Amino acid sequence: MNNPETPSAVSPPDANTLSLTDRYWRAANYLSVGQIYLLDNPLLREPLKPEHIKPRLLGHWGTTPGLNFIYVHLNRIIRARDLNLIYICGPGHGGPGMVANTWLEGSYSEIYPDIGNDAEGMRKLFRQFSFPGGIPSHAAPETPGSINEGGELGYGLVHAYGAVFDNPDLIAACVIGDGEAETGPLAASWHSTKFINPARDGAVLPILHLNGYKIANPTLLARTSDEDLEQLFRGYGYLPLFVEGDDPAIMHQDMAIACDKAFDHIHNIQRQAREQTAQTGVPQWPLIILRSPKGWTGPKEVDGKMTENFWRSHQVPVAECREDDGHRHILEQWLRSYRPEELFDDSGCLKDELRRLAPEGERRMGANPHANGGLLRKPLRLPPIADYAVKICRRGEVQAQSTAVLAAYLRDIFTLNEEQAHFRLFGPDETASNRLSRVFEATSRVTMQEIRSYDEQLSHSGRVMEVLSEHLCQGWLEGYLLTGRHGLFTCYEAFIHIVDSMFNQHAKWLKVSRKLAWRQPISSLNYLLSSHVWRQDHNGYSHQDPGFVDLVANKKADVVRIYLPPDANTLLWVGDHCLNTYDRINVIIAGKQPEPQWLTMEEAIAHCEAGMGIWPWAGNEHDSEHGPDVVMACAGDVPTMETLAAVELLRQHLPELTVRVVNVVDIMALQSSDQHPHGYQNAEFDQLFTTDRPVIFAWHGYPALIHRLTYKRRNHANLHVHGFMEEGTTTTPFDMTVLNQVDRYHLALAALHHVTELRGNAKADQLARLLEQKLEQHYHHVREFGDDLPEVRDWTWQAINQKTAG
Amino acid sequence: MNNPETPSAVSPPDANTLSLTDRYWRAANYLSVGQIYLLDNPLLREPLKPEHIKPRLLGHWGTTPGLNFIYVHLNRIIRARDLNLIYICGPGHGGPGMVANTWLEGSYSEIYPDIGNDAEGMRKLFRQFSFPGGIPSHAAPETPGSINEGGELGYGLVHAYGAVFDNPDLIAACVIGDGEAETGPLAASWHSTKFINPARDGAVLPILHLNGYKIANPTLLARTSDEDLEQLFRGYGYLPLFVEGDDPAIMHQDMAIACDKAFDHIHNIQRQAREQTAQTGVPQWPLIILRSPKGWTGPKEVDGKMTENFWRSHQVPVAECREDDGHRHILEQWLRSYRPEELFDDSGCLKDELRRLAPEGERRMGANPHANGGLLRKPLRLPPIADYAVKICRRGEVQAQSTAVLAAYLRDIFTLNEEQAHFRLFGPDETASNRLSRVFEATSRVTMQEIRSYDEQLSHSGRVMEVLSEHLCQGWLEGYLLTGRHGLFTCYEAFIHIVDSMFNQHAKWLKVSRKLAWRQPISSLNYLLSSHVWRQDHNGYSHQDPGFVDLVANKKADVVRIYLPPDANTLLWVGDHCLNTYDRINVIIAGKQPEPQWLTMEEAIAHCEAGMGIWPWAGNEHDSEHGPDVVMACAGDVPTMETLAAVELLRQHLPELTVRVVNVVDIMALQSSDQHPHGYQNAEFDQLFTTDRPVIFAWHGYPALIHRLTYKRRNHANLHVHGFMEEGTTTTPFDMTVLNQVDRYHLALAALHHVTELRGNAKADQLARLLEQKLEQHYHHVREFGDDLPEVRDWTWQAINQKTAG
Repeated sequence: MNNPETPSAVSPPDANTLSLTDRYWRAANYLSVGQIYLLDNPLLREPLKPEHIKPRLLGHWGTTPGLNFIYVHLNRIIRARDLNLIYICGPGHGGPGMVANTWLEGSYSEIYPDIGNDAEGMRKLFRQFSFPGGIPSHAAPETPGSINEGGELGYGLVHAYGAVFDNPDLIAACVIGDGEAETGPLAASWHSTKFINPARDGAVLPILHLNGYKIANPTLLARTSDEDLEQLFRGYGYLPLFVEGDDPAIMHQDMAIACDKAFDHIHNIQRQAREQTAQTGVPQWPLIILRSPKGWTGPKEVDGKMTENFWRSHQVPVAECREDDGHRHILEQWLRSYRPEELFDDSGCLKDELRRLAPEGERRMGANPHANGGLLRKPLRLPPIADYAVKICRRGEVQAQSTAVLAAYLRDIFTLNEEQAHFRLFGPDETASNRLSRVFEATSRVTMQEIRSYDEQLSHSGRVMEVLSEHLCQGWLEGYLLTGRHGLFTCYEAFIHIVDSMFNQHAKWLKVSRKLAWRQPISSLNYLLSSHVWRQDHNGYSHQDPGFVDLVANKKADVVRIYLPPDANTLLWVGDHCLNTYDRINVIIAGKQPEPQWLTMEEAIAHCEAGMGIWPWAGNEHDSEHGPDVVMACAGDVPTMETLAAVELLRQHLPELTVRVVNVVDIMALQSSDQHPHGYQNAEFDQLFTTDRPVIFAWHGYPALIHRLTYKRRNHANLHVHGFMEEGTTTTPFDMTVLNQVDRYHLALAALHHVTELRGNAKADQLARLLEQKLEQHYHHVREFGDDLPEVRDWTWQAINQKTAG
Repeated sequence: MNNPETPSAVSPPDANTLSLTDRYWRAANYLSVGQIYLLDNPLLREPLKPEHIKPRLLGHWGTTPGLNFIYVHLNRIIRARDLNLIYICGPGHGGPGMVANTWLEGSYSEIYPDIGNDAEGMRKLFRQFSFPGGIPSHAAPETPGSINEGGELGYGLVHAYGAVFDNPDLIAACVIGDGEAETGPLAASWHSTKFINPARDGAVLPILHLNGYKIANPTLLARTSDEDLEQLFRGYGYLPLFVEGDDPAIMHQDMAIACDKAFDHIHNIQRQAREQTAQTGVPQWPLIILRSPKGWTGPKEVDGKMTENFWRSHQVPVAECREDDGHRHILEQWLRSYRPEELFDDSGCLKDELRRLAPEGERRMGANPHANGGLLRKPLRLPPIADYAVKICRRGEVQAQSTAVLAAYLRDIFTLNEEQAHFRLFGPDETASNRLSRVFEATSRVTMQEIRSYDEQLSHSGRVMEVLSEHLCQGWLEGYLLTGRHGLFTCYEAFIHIVDSMFNQHAKWLKVSRKLAWRQPISSLNYLLSSHVWRQDHNGYSHQDPGFVDLVANKKADVVRIYLPPDANTLLWVGDHCLNTYDRINVIIAGKQPEPQWLTMEEAIAHCEAGMGIWPWAGNEHDSEHGPDVVMACAGDVPTMETLAAVELLRQHLPELTVRVVNVVDIMALQSSDQHPHGYQNAEFDQLFTTDRPVIFAWHGYPALIHRLTYKRRNHANLHVHGFMEEGTTTTPFDMTVLNQVDRYHLALAALHHVTELRGNAKADQLARLLEQKLEQHYHHVREFGDDLPEVRDWTWQAINQKTAG
C-alpha cells in the first residue's frame, strides 16, 4: 500500500503528567525490588533488618525497570486513546515487573483476593514471589495479562502476531529483549507483518528493548549502531522510532512522544486500509527501539564493581543482604531512592493521584480478556463428519487419501465459520503437499506482499498461513489459541521436531493454567502430521523421523493425546473430536497417499470412541473354539495395511492358525488407567491382547514407545514390537517397511516364530520359506526396477469376510 | 574496522570464457535432468522411449539450475585465484546439481570408481539417483564436497561459518535458498559475521538465491524489493551485490563480475586485518543476491500451465514421461536443448575444453579435504585428568561444583592446543552460569563488535562462542567438527530441546557417513548439559525438562552415548573420554552446584569404565550372609545424593535390612548387549540388580526411559523408577525432589514398601512414620521459611565406611 504519512511531530504530555508517570514508574520499581528481596517490612516503616530479607534471593532485576517503564507509558496511551491493548512480555524473566504493575492497577488483587491492595497485601505479594508455594519468578500462566510463558526466550513476537490475527481492535504491544532478539525464531518473526492485513487484523507494536546485556555478555543488537539498526528494521519493513538515554525525565518525555507517534501511525494505517475496499502491499508498521540501562535505577556499584548498566544487574544485583550489613544498606538506600512515602498512603495503598493513571476495567492490561482467551472463545461450528465419509463396500478395495478426505471437512469449517472468522490453518508451505488443497475451495493462503496474475490460491484475505518456518507456524497458532480462537497446524512428521521446545513450553502452560480457576479453557493445539516416516521414501532419510510422539508421551497425561487413524473415516472422527476439545495438545498422524480403506463411518466412530479394539472381520477367531493363537496388533496407516496383508498370508496358507487383529487409534489407551485417563483397565486390556499369547505389534514409530506404555501389562513379555529402527533412505514405500521389518513378510514370519505351537509344523515351515522367498524377490525387484513388485503395489485385501456390515 | 574500499569496477571475463562457462553449465543441467528422469540412453543417442524413463520420477529440479550456475562460476574463480573454497548447499534438495558437478570435475568417479567418467558411468550415475540401493535425492553424506545434510532447511549458513572459524585460508561459499531464508535459524545466522575475525578466520560468501518460490508458494524475500533487501542486509552488516535476470549470456557476465567484486572485497578485508596487529569493528562482508528463475532452462509450460519461473518446477516439472508421449517429447526437447553433442565426446566424456574449466586436485570442491574434515583432523592434546581430581578423604564430606572442576581441565585444553587452534567452547551465554568461568583464565569470549573498557572476558581472539541462540551454537559447532576440529556445547538442559531437530539431522549424518569408507571420522559432538532439571528450582517450571535424552536414546546405538557422572571426578573421566571419541554424539549431564563428592579419581576411573557398578562402601552387604534385601540404584548427581541419604536413613534405623547401592554413569549400559555396544550381558546385569529383589531406581529424567532400556531384563518387574514426573515450579532444590518423589524420604519409603519381608515389621513401620513426619516437616518449613531444612541443606554422608580406600 502507499504508506500513510510518516508520523509527524507530536507534543509531549504536560509536566504534571510526566511527573505522575515517573512516580508511578517508581512505584512499580519499588514493588519489583520488594518482591525480589523482602519477607517483611514492605513499606520500610522501620530500618531494614536481616529478618526482613528472604533467605534465598531469586529473580531478575536487570530487565525489570525497562518493562515497568514501558508498562506505565502504555497505561498512559490506553487511557488517552481508549485502546484495547495487551502486553506481551518477551523478557519474561522480568516477572516481578508484570506482577507489580497488575497489583498497582488492581487486576492482581481481583484475581487473587488474598493479595489485597494494601500494606498486608503488599507484604504477601513480596513474600510469595519465587517462594515455595508462591508464584514463579517469570511471567507465567499465574501472571494476569500474560499469554506468554516467559522462561524460554524467542516467542514473544510471534505470539503477539498470532494474537492480533482476526482481532481488528486489538493491539499487542510486544517487548523484545535484546537477548531474545538473538534467537532464530525471533529473528524470523519480524517478517510477520507480511501476513497482517490491517483491514481485518489488529496491530502489533514491537518494542525492542536494548538494555545492553544478557546474563554475562553484551548483546549483538545493543552493540550495533543506530544506523545499522535503522537499516535492518527498515529492511524488515518497519519504521523504527528510537528512544535512548538514562535520565528518567527526558526518557519519559521521549517515550511518550514515540508512543504517540507509533499509535498515530498504526491508526493511520488501519484507517486507510479500512476505508478502502482493497489493500496492496505491506504497510510499514512502527517499531520502538528503546535503549535504556540494564538494571536502571538500581545500585550503580556493588563491592566496587559496576552494576547498573551492566550485566551484573541481570539477576540479584546485591546478594548478601541478610548476612552483610553493607549489602543490606545498599538495598535499603536503593528501596528508599524510590521514596515509597510519596507513592503509597498510610495503609499501603497506591496514592489516589497515581491510581488514576491506570486504565479501568478490562482496559487494564492485567484484566484484558484477550489475555485470558478462553473468556472470549466461541465454539467452532463443525459440519457433520458423516457427510464426508468414504463409502466402504468391500473392505480394503476402495482407495482414498485420508488427508484429502479431511480437507473437504476442513474446507467447510472455513465456510461455516466465515462470519466468526476464528479458524485458521497453519503450515510450512505444505498444505498442498499434505493433500489439503480442497481447503482452497473456501479460502486461500494469505499474503500482504505483491500478488501476481499467475499466482494461485493467494490473497490478502486468506485464512491459510504458510511460511517456511515451523517456529512461526507454531507460534502464530499458539498466539491465536491463547486469545480464544481455533486452529490446526499441519506439518511433515519429521520436521515437527523443530518446535519440540515450543511444544514443551505450551504443554507446561496448559498444565499450569488448567489448575487456575480464573483462566478459562482455550482450544486445543492440534497437530496434523502427514508426509510421515513411511511415505517419505522419495525425500529420504533426513525426512524420516517418527520420534515426536516420544516427546509428547512424556507430558502430563491430562494434557496430551496421540491418535493414529488407520484410514479416512477414522481420521474424520479424530479430526472432529480434536477440534472439539480444549486445553489439550492433540497429535494426529495420518496418511496422505492413496491407501486401502477399512471401516465404515459407523464402525469408525465406534472404534475411535473405544480407542482400540478387535477387528473381527480381519481375524478368524469365529472359525475357532479357543481364543487366538496370535494377536496381530497395529497402529498407524501403513503398519495397519502391512498387518492385514500379513494376516491374509497367514490365513491363506495356514488357516488352522487362529489370528486376532487389534487396531489402536488412541495410543494413550495402551497405558494403564492409573497413568492416563484414556488408559484401559487391565482386565479390558487383557481381553484384547490376552494374557499369554504372542502379540506381534506393528507400530508406526520407534518400538520403545509401545514398550514403555505397556510395560505394566500382564502380557508384556509376549509383546514383539516392529517399528522404525532408524533405517531409511530414498527408496520405494514398501522397501521402507522392509528395511525396518514392519512389512507383511516380516510380520507374518514373526507370528510363525513366536507361536511356539507351530514349531515343527510342516505347513508353517513351508510358509516361512515362502515368505523368505518373497523378501528375496522384493530385494531383487526393487533394486533392478526401482519400483515395488506389482503384487505389493497393487495389493488389496482379499481375505474372507471382507464385506462390511452395511 | 575501517572498511576497505568498496569493490571497484571490474571487467567481465572474455567472451570465450563466458561461452565455455555457459557450455559447462549446460552440461551440469543436462546431467541433473538425466538423473531425475533417465534409466538408460544417457547421451540421447536414440530417440527417447518409455523404457528409458525411470518408473518413479523423484528429485527437485527447481533449485538445481541455479545451484549449477553458482558452481560453475565458483569453479572459474577458484582457478583464477587458486582459492581454497568449499560449497555449502543450503537448498540441499538440489542434490542432482551437486552430483552432476562433482562428476564433471572428476571427484565423483575418484570416490566412486564404479561410476566412471564415460557414457557407461553416466548411465549408472543417472540410474542410481533416488533409486533403491542408490543415492539419496538430497545433498547428503554420500555427496562429495558436502558437509551439509540438505534435507532439513535452515542450517547452511551457520555450518558455513562454523567451517571457517580458525581456517584462515578457507572460504565457504554458501548458497541460501529463499525458502530456507524464511527459517528462524537462518535468519539468526546472518549475525555470524560479528564473530568472524578476518585475521585468524576464513570467510563466508553467502549467495542468497531468490528463485521466487517454495513448494507451492512465493517466498517472502523474493517478493521483497531490492531496496528493502539492500537495507535489510546492510543492517545485518553485509555489502549486497545483486545479480538478476534470466538471459544466460547476461547473467554469466554479471555473475562473473559480482564474484570478482566479492572476492576482491574479501581479499581486501583479510589483507587489511592481517597486516594490522589488531582489528576493531565488524567488517562489511560481501553477499551476492542472485535472482534467477526457478527451474531455469526447464520447460516453460506443461499441459498449458506455467512451469519455468514458477513453483510448478519445484520437483519434477513434467511427470508422465513414461506413459504420455507428449510429456516424453517435452522431456526430450528439454534435454536436447542443452545440446549434449557439444558437451560430451563420443565416449561420453566431458569435452576437453570444458574439462579444463574445473579446478584441479584438492581445489575441486568435490575433493576439498575441508569437506571431509576427518582427513584434516588432528588429535586434541588433553591434560591428565588426575591433575584436576578432587581429593576425597571422607566420602560425601568435601563439596565441589563438578562443572567448575571440569572448567580447569577445559582451560588447560585451550592452553595445550593454542598453536593448533582447533578447539572451541560454544554456549548460549551460559559459560559463567554453568560454572565454567575458569576457562577465561586461558581464553575469552569472542566478538568483533565494540569492546568497552569495562567489558570482561571479551576479545577479538577468544575461543568461547556465546550467543543467545542454541541454533547458532549447535550449527557453528557442527560446521567446526565437520571440517575436522573439536568442540563442546554447554547448555541448560531444558533448552537443548531447541536443537532437537538439528541433533536428529547430525545423528543421521553420522549414521550414514560411518558406513562410507572414504569419509574419515570426525570428532564427536559433545554436549555438556548443566543447570539441569533438579537445580532449576530458581528459574522454575519453564526451565525444568530432562527429556532430551529420550530423543537421544531413539538413535542408532553406535552413534549415541549418555553419561550422568554423579560427582566431579567421574565428570572429569567422562569429559576426557568424550573428547577422545569420534563419529558419536555424547550427552553429558552434570551438576554445577556445590554437592558432595563420592569417588576418588582411581575409583571414578574404574566405575566409569564399567559404566555402572555397586558402591560397596555405601551398602551393608558385608554385614550380611545373604544377598541384598533391596537394591537402591541411582543415576545423576541429585538422585545419587538422595539415594545415599535414603540409604543412610535405612541403615541407621533398620540396620538389619541389607541394602545394595548401584550407581549408573553410562546409561546405555542398562540396555541389552544386543541393543547397544555398551549394554551389559544379562548375567552381568543380574549380578548388579539381582533377579528377584526390589530395585528402587532414582533417575534423573522421566522414568519411562529406564523402563524402556531395561524391559528385557529378568528383574524388570521389580524395578521401581522414581524420576521427573513433570512437577515443577520456582521453589527450593530439595522441594523439587519431593514434588517428584525422588527425595530421600520417598526413596526410603519405597524401599520399605517393596521389601515384602518387612510387612508387619514394627521397626520398619516406625521408620515409615518417621519418614512421613520428615516430609511433613519439610512441607511446613519450606512454605514457612522459603528454604530447606538445615538437616537437608547441610546434610553430609555419615554412614559407616565413609572413608575411602586411599
